[in-house]
Parts: sequence; structure tokens; C-alpha cells
Amino acid sequence: MIHKLETGANRKVSESTVRRLTVYLHYLESLPEARAVSSDELAALVATTPAQVRKDLSFFGSFGTRGLGYSAAELIANLRKILGVGELWRICIVGAGKIGLALAQYPGFAGRGFTVTGVYDCDPAKIGQPWESLTIRNIDDLPKDAGKTPYDIGVIAVPSESGQDVANIMVEANIRAIMNFAPVQIVAPPHIVVRMVNMVLEFEALSFALTQRAE
Amino acid sequence: MIHKLETGANRKVSESTVRRLTVYLHYLESLPEARAVSSDELAALVATTPAQVRKDLSFFGSFGTRGLGYSAAELIANLRKILGVGELWRICIVGAGKIGLALAQYPGFAGRGFTVTGVYDCDPAKIGQPWESLTIRNIDDLPKDAGKTPYDIGVIAVPSESGQDVANIMVEANIRAIMNFAPVQIVAPPHIVVRMVNMVLEFEALSFALTQRAE
Repeated sequence: MIHKLETGANRKVSESTVRRLTVYLHYLESLPEARAVSSDELAALVATTPAQVRKDLSFFGSFGTRGLGYSAAELIANLRKILGVGELWRICIVGAGKIGLALAQYPGFAGRGFTVTGVYDCDPAKIGQPWESLTIRNIDDLPKDAGKTPYDIGVIAVPSESGQDVANIMVEANIRAIMNFAPVQIVAPPHIVVRMVNMVLEFEALSFALTQRAE
Repeated sequence: MIHKLETGANRKVSESTVRRLTVYLHYLESLPEARAVSSDELAALVATTPAQVRKDLSFFGSFGTRGLGYSAAELIANLRKILGVGELWRICIVGAGKIGLALAQYPGFAGRGFTVTGVYDCDPAKIGQPWESLTIRNIDDLPKDAGKTPYDIGVIAVPSESGQDVANIMVEANIRAIMNFAPVQIVAPPHIVVRMVNMVLEFEALSFALTQRAE
């Protein structure tokens, strides 16, 4: 679940650094106008230290000016490039249920280049039915479809018992990044990035905190 | 965004430890039968070292037997207690849209004690309408309702510009844990736990990985 990612400079970037970079970017883009921002200001966003912020940004060659901070406009441009925001990412969702639909309609999702270009299911009652502006296709056709027009990201939105099977099909379809919503750990070759997002796990972290505090 | 949580023994437990504990639990519960598990086996689940697994579990007084590993049944019981799984957690969702609905219907959510007992919105067209087995209520009534029957967890599922306002109302309603789906950082008093789950941020971590690998 912890991915160490290589930067162009061949330096390891931890998942927590990537998460902080995405939060910095969303914050900077929410500013009413481009201005200078301090490492203190960015640190407060993610409950870290200004030193950590400077380290995060130095990975990518952004150095602030002492006393003046960072140029928001410059940081935005750098972060968008680093994070691949603004590029078109073709996404296929496997599992034409509520989670996939909620994702496609998630505010800001399509606007940041994440475009659902294929939806698949194994249920004959669903295959051929309309889904947003698409038609639900047969999961068996995914590798063939991807051979014609590749997908960048595959979304697993099926029950846990089918999660690994779907991942295997995605690997066969040369999909390089998988977002797994099924509450099961997915095994994939090392060149494929897998992230797991699971609401139940997230809420259990809250119930942990509530339980500890009640003691 | 990084929460350090106190255990009963007053030791700091990092968010990443909590996440690993939840993954261990889901895995153990998925085993067809209770058996012994090794720290190697649990380490593989979360891409960490067996030593880290032993450290994670020792926080809570679970020690395996050399050569025999841990008893799955005992670990399950300990982890459920630590994580508060199986207790009834009363949840209110603010924002009667697709994200809230997807959450309520998320597989395994209600079954683990997370029960949506209130849904609120500020849209007069939604207030009074049915929502699953509930009726959508006026957000202004949240503190009053919570005064009668408290909520444990508040879910923010509104557009980003309203996120902080909703958080403030939840604080007023004595809600101790907030799950924020709005793509905005929420400020809350330190005694309140806030987690942010944002699909766009999660996908940006994938696009980061794809961008780096393309270089």
C-alpha cells in the first residue's frame, strides 16, 4: 500500500509527500489571486513543519526567496506539471454500480482531466445499458478495447471477491495505474501503481480515534 | 491532515499505523478460518517489514509466539476492540447528494456499525424529501437534533465553499469526528478528529505516478 515513486531525478518520493503536494496545489488554486505564499502557510494546511514543506518543494527544484516566500503562480505551474494535472487521463470503470457513478459525477473530477471513457460490467442485465454518456460494455472486451484505445487508469468498483480478477484483466489490458475501491488488497506486477480507497477503512480510523478518546 | 492519536497507554499512534491496523483486521476477517498468522504474512499486505508489524501490534499488547505467529482469532478480537469496530456509530451526513448516498450504500459500511441516522441539507427543495429510510432535515436543526440524540461522526458532503460552515455547525453540535469529502481543508478545534477523503486528490497521486514513469 505504500508506494515509493521515482522522480525524474531518480529520487524516491513517498506517498505522503505526494499527498501533501496535491493539497498544496488545491490550496494554491483556491487563492483568489496569485501572490507569494510562505512555507509556514503551506505547512499549516497539512499539519507539518515549514522545513518539511521546503523539502517537499525542493524535490522538484522550487526554492522560495527568503522573506518573500514562493510565487503561487510558479508553484501552481510546477505542481500541475509534476502531478500530471491538466493532462487528459482516460479512465475505465469496472463495476457499473453506485460507486462508479458517484466517482464520475464527483465535483471537480472531470474538470481536472480525469475522463471516464469506458464502463464495464459482467452482469448481462447491465451490459448494453446507458451509463452517463457511455454504454456499459462486457468486461471480457476490456483487453481488446484497450488494444485499440488505451486506458491510463482502471477503477475497480466491484465486490471484494471479484477485485483480483478485475485487476488481472486490467493488467492484461496494459493499464498502468489502478484505483481499487474494493475492500481487498490487490496484487499486481511492480510496474503497475495500485491505490486502495476504501470508505470502511477510512471510517474505522475515525472510530479508532473515538474509541481511544473515550478511555 | 496527519493526526497523532493517543492510545490508552498514552502512546502516540500515527495515522499510518492506524491504517495498517485496519488492513490487518480486514485481512484476518477474510480468512476462511481462524489460524495462526505470521508477521511476514501481515507485512506483505501493507508493503512493510515484519518488524514494523510486530511494532504495530505490540502497541496494543499483542505478542506472537516465535515460530508460531499470532492467533488470528485473538488478533481479530483485539483489533476490533482497538478500532471500535462492532460498536454502533451514529453518523449524520450533511449534503443530501450522490456522495452521501453512495456512502450509505457502500458495501460493508452499515454492517460494521456505521449507521447513518441523520441527513441534512440547506436546499428547501430537498428538505422533507425521503432519503433511504430517513427524511432530509434542515441543516439549521442539526445542533438541536444532536442535543437530543448525539451523533458520533459527521460527514461533510457539500461543495467546498460550504465545507467550513458545515464543520462549524458540527462542532457546535458536539460532533467529535468529522469525515470531510469536500476538496477543502477544514479547521476544527484540536479535540475533534478530522479526516479528508477526496477522490480528486487520490487520482492525482495516480497521475503523478504515471507522469513520473513517462519521463
